[in-house]
Amino acid sequence: MKQEARSRKHELSVAICIDLGGTDLKSAVVDSSGKILHQQSTPSESKKNKKKILDNLISSISIEEQWAQAQGFRIQGVGLGIPGIVSYPEGIVHRSPHFPDLKDFPIKKLLQKKIHFPLVLDNDANMAALGEGWIGAAKGKKNYLLMTLGTGIGGGIVFDGKLLHGDSGFAGEVGHIVIEREGRRCNCGGRGCLEMYASATGILYGLSPSLRRRGLGGGLTAEHLYHLALQGNKTAQKIYKDFGKALGAGIASLVNVLDIELVMLGGGLSGAWKVFIDSTRQSIARHTYLTTAKKIILKRALLGNNAGLIGTARAVFVGY
Amino acid sequence: MKQEARSRKHELSVAICIDLGGTDLKSAVVDSSGKILHQQSTPSESKKNKKKILDNLISSISIEEQWAQAQGFRIQGVGLGIPGIVSYPEGIVHRSPHFPDLKDFPIKKLLQKKIHFPLVLDNDANMAALGEGWIGAAKGKKNYLLMTLGTGIGGGIVFDGKLLHGDSGFAGEVGHIVIEREGRRCNCGGRGCLEMYASATGILYGLSPSLRRRGLGGGLTAEHLYHLALQGNKTAQKIYKDFGKALGAGIASLVNVLDIELVMLGGGLSGAWKVFIDSTRQSIARHTYLTTAKKIILKRALLGNNAGLIGTARAVFVGY
Repeated sequence: MKQEARSRKHELSVAICIDLGGTDLKSAVVDSSGKILHQQSTPSESKKNKKKILDNLISSISIEEQWAQAQGFRIQGVGLGIPGIVSYPEGIVHRSPHFPDLKDFPIKKLLQKKIHFPLVLDNDANMAALGEGWIGAAKGKKNYLLMTLGTGIGGGIVFDGKLLHGDSGFAGEVGHIVIEREGRRCNCGGRGCLEMYASATGILYGLSPSLRRRGLGGGLTAEHLYHLALQGNKTAQKIYKDFGKALGAGIASLVNVLDIELVMLGGGLSGAWKVFIDSTRQSIARHTYLTTAKKIILKRALLGNNAGLIGTARAVFVGY
Repeated sequence: MKQEARSRKHELSVAICIDLGGTDLKSAVVDSSGKILHQQSTPSESKKNKKKILDNLISSISIEEQWAQAQGFRIQGVGLGIPGIVSYPEGIVHRSPHFPDLKDFPIKKLLQKKIHFPLVLDNDANMAALGEGWIGAAKGKKNYLLMTLGTGIGGGIVFDGKLLHGDSGFAGEVGHIVIEREGRRCNCGGRGCLEMYASATGILYGLSPSLRRRGLGGGLTAEHLYHLALQGNKTAQKIYKDFGKALGAGIASLVNVLDIELVMLGGGLSGAWKVFIDSTRQSIARHTYLTTAKKIILKRALLGNNAGLIGTARAVFVGY
């Protein structure tokens, strides 16, 4: 009996999943149903150089590997989500605002040399989109879009259950849709990108002239403003209303181009859903044909901070 | 000898191709290399009701069928391009500005009942995109985008050699990307759609206040203005420069989302290429990361007015 139980356990396939975040380097062992069996986290120290980042990744993978092997699990592969623009299928980091030293770093090739399992690697928002489609808010949907609203805006577009990668793997940069061509200057060098309106950066941009005039400036974050808005502060409410309106214009553009009905919102700022979503819906209706607007389903992402980790497991088990 | 020649001819497969344009109903017999073997055209009389439009389509198909059979060709199928938003795969016309009476008309189902060959049917810009990818400016390319610049803006997006249809077949409505969220009012009910800037409608919109002040108004078309711009007229040049700039902002948004390198411009206004393309390039560079801008290849579509016809043949022979 004991023998039999152990051999059954042996058959359990797991993925080692890594989410290299701007703040934390998270890793996990995830089974083929998307369940997290073991998880750990350590500061990612983004100032570190690429050699050190690579070493940290290898170290996290190694710990998860030991844990999984001690349990007698079969490791099917390693999945990694990277914050930044990553080429596909080569896995070269093109640009990563959080990890400047990773620029043009062939991370997939170098990491694959050091580990014994097949490695899959993609942008973190892409991985999160996969996770949500697997066991989250888009479960069972073939076509959907995830927008992650944080300091900037990330995105993952899924058609027929597969990520849309484009020519080089850079598709899904939905934060750089131009919604006001003579608008705010963006880090990308452009003007009027969605990211400058519908992100924490956009919130604080909206804050500077208006709130500061009212003595509400210094040190305020998008979260403070969210609570102020909930408490009825008109200026904070207006800032979130503008945020929602800009987001709606961006979603309208995306829907008109992609004809995707399910749009999921994730990332820290999606937590402020209740103070902006009405103006988002109004703005979508304003910028699309009525019949299109009616079809759109806006949903909050379900998997929270684990979406990326779980998505890498989906990429390992099912593909991406 | 004669017998053998005829039997070889029998083996030639052809498609019957129909392009229901706002002005003309064109039809053709096209072989599997994309060569037009026979072609005819008749005014499409867009004011006609749906019954009459259907009859006209059947009549065109019937003439091409007789011609092809007289030649001893094997008819593989019928392809039809429709100006408007068409559901996929059902082939119901959702909305067609040129043929208002076709609204919600299940044209594929009704037409299929009347003809003896498999019918493929899609939006005309989608068909044109297929044609350009088959034997035109995107030949051999897996991923590309066609924008047709006319009264409005049409679009077809191809990934891995297949049209991107989205959930209902409405994908590719690139004219309704929002580039100025408080900008010009659009027919779709929205504001600031690309189509209100980078189309003949946009050109004439730009004309009204500025050119009319100079007594250059009444009866001018985008084509007149093109010739004026070529002759050095500063106002006409500025109008086309603004057109190009808006187009560049739209292309930048598309490229950031889709990561498509090859962008083809077709439709009547692409003929004015030389008076706007420099400002389009500058605008793309302004609204994307430099590395992205460098990758983008702008091309004029090659197949002109026949792109749609040829594309339907591609859909018949290869799929869509």
